[in-house]
Amino acid sequence: MGKKRAGAGGELGLIRQIRQRAGAGRRGSGLRLGIGDDCALLRPRDGEELAITTDLSIAGRHFRLDWHPPEAVGHRALARGLSDLAAMGARPVAAFLSLGVPRELTVAPDRARRGGKGSWVDGFLNGLFALAKAHGVPLAGGDLAESPVALADIVLVGAVPRGKALLRTGARVGDPVYVTGSLGGAAAGLKMVAKLNGSANSGPIPKEWRDAMSAQLRPEPRIPQGLALRRRGLATAAIDLSDGLSTDLAHLCEESGVSAIIQSELLPIAKSATLDQALNGGEDYELLFTARPKTLVPRSIDGVPITLIGYINEGVPDEPAVMIATGRVVAPLEARGWQHFSEP
Amino acid sequence: MGKKRAGAGGELGLIRQIRQRAGAGRRGSGLRLGIGDDCALLRPRDGEELAITTDLSIAGRHFRLDWHPPEAVGHRALARGLSDLAAMGARPVAAFLSLGVPRELTVAPDRARRGGKGSWVDGFLNGLFALAKAHGVPLAGGDLAESPVALADIVLVGAVPRGKALLRTGARVGDPVYVTGSLGGAAAGLKMVAKLNGSANSGPIPKEWRDAMSAQLRPEPRIPQGLALRRRGLATAAIDLSDGLSTDLAHLCEESGVSAIIQSELLPIAKSATLDQALNGGEDYELLFTARPKTLVPRSIDGVPITLIGYINEGVPDEPAVMIATGRVVAPLEARGWQHFSEP
Repeated sequence: MGKKRAGAGGELGLIRQIRQRAGAGRRGSGLRLGIGDDCALLRPRDGEELAITTDLSIAGRHFRLDWHPPEAVGHRALARGLSDLAAMGARPVAAFLSLGVPRELTVAPDRARRGGKGSWVDGFLNGLFALAKAHGVPLAGGDLAESPVALADIVLVGAVPRGKALLRTGARVGDPVYVTGSLGGAAAGLKMVAKLNGSANSGPIPKEWRDAMSAQLRPEPRIPQGLALRRRGLATAAIDLSDGLSTDLAHLCEESGVSAIIQSELLPIAKSATLDQALNGGEDYELLFTARPKTLVPRSIDGVPITLIGYINEGVPDEPAVMIATGRVVAPLEARGWQHFSEP
Repeated sequence: MGKKRAGAGGELGLIRQIRQRAGAGRRGSGLRLGIGDDCALLRPRDGEELAITTDLSIAGRHFRLDWHPPEAVGHRALARGLSDLAAMGARPVAAFLSLGVPRELTVAPDRARRGGKGSWVDGFLNGLFALAKAHGVPLAGGDLAESPVALADIVLVGAVPRGKALLRTGARVGDPVYVTGSLGGAAAGLKMVAKLNGSANSGPIPKEWRDAMSAQLRPEPRIPQGLALRRRGLATAAIDLSDGLSTDLAHLCEESGVSAIIQSELLPIAKSATLDQALNGGEDYELLFTARPKTLVPRSIDGVPITLIGYINEGVPDEPAVMIATGRVVAPLEARGWQHFSEP
């Protein structure tokens, strides 16, 4: 729209820097042409189809510049997309990043203040590339723009054998419902991050706090678990827990045309978390899945525990999709997880 | 991060509305599973690879809420991505939209003020879906968030026979350089949009103004031309003109390791545009391509004129990538097109 002279640094400099770091883990993934042309080119293997997801993270909505270190923002942005691939049982092929940032976040501040660590964008990219490397995902492209608010839209492309993806639609009456890992840790961690940020105390942080903060700042997408569920044919339906168990289980029920009942005593609540955080907190990025009643589901996959939390029931129109049993008391579980544009 | 009760409208209502409209043109495109699961699933045809591009549009940077009608913002967002597919010679398969908007843009304002036309988001989606329908592209997924600034990140996925995509890297010494359509119209149109916005005059708008404004508000991505160039084997390299001829030709030269000389008298300057707008204005979304010297390039493709504007020369390190000849005077053409984060 406007126009500016190309400077020595500027957008081209930043793109050059990203391009140099983008190749990590590129070999064999299916990426044929990465950053540098009008499009990237991906070549799935014979018999594969591609799974694609996009996730938008905006400062003040999905993260806070004063609470989340830039490395955590980069890690979380990529983790959200990888978690969607995990829920389909897809292997990651490539990521794309559209990054909008205020100009000052591209400039390294006072060395004294940030310990010579470079700009906010450098930190963001460090977090993103570290997780990308851990999962062997190359950055294949994206876009870059100056923006009044920091934001990142991440696109993940994965591959899965044709017709074999784990869908939300496959849950049937009688299927047990499972989750990976523990629930509520990310929400509990956010509270601690907020408390530490507002406190003058700089003493040692208790281990329980560190674990919960890590669940918030560096969630681990369950790619190996998703791949194992798909390859071993264990799951009938799956979804990742990004918005919170109450909301995401309702999504799965809606797409499968069923309802579910979960038992609150069975929930694997994270150590520092409350029941409310486990049900409605969101951002845990665990997998929720159903299996056939006779399927032998292992107690853990690749070191991550798998917990039975309830069962699938018939879907009844205009009835709540999810019920929760506490002892013998059964009540509707309202979807109270994350939603934008809802009534305040 | 935060948490809100799910309202009757809200995010789910908006997603439902988008999902209902998303299927247009879905059949046969290669989209196997659209909105409603953790990922969309795309199945390329045998022997095809996928081309993927992302384009971020932010209010105040890529469009202005007071200048660009919401329909134009939606059209332009999709057109940017389609134009990248055109430059690869790819057929469109699916689009993904990550939309961030302030809450008030999701609400229909006073009927009197907008003629009962619905919210800004409704207008945006009308513009986007109209162009999507014209090109048979289904909306396969995306994300939605409340944002302090309106923004749209669009992802386009296209398909192209393996190894046949038009790349930026194929230009060779002696290749003539061509452009589709005319140049500078979008930049000239922006000036007119701005003038009309600041003027109290509501009389009839001259045709020349309407044409230029249309180039700015409703650019036509050159999908049929890109497909024809690729299918008929006409082009050795291609790029779309999004940032401006001076910048985009320099990109193509850099990726091909060559330089170029263009003749200012040959440039197909849009009627109301200046030479500067044709060289540096950007947003024309025409295709720039090179061909082998002996290739017979048609004068038009599908009604859009094709114009020879110059030739490819050897690349010399530390010399300007693009020269411009005006009569017998030859001078370096500085890349003065759009760039973010450049020196002000």
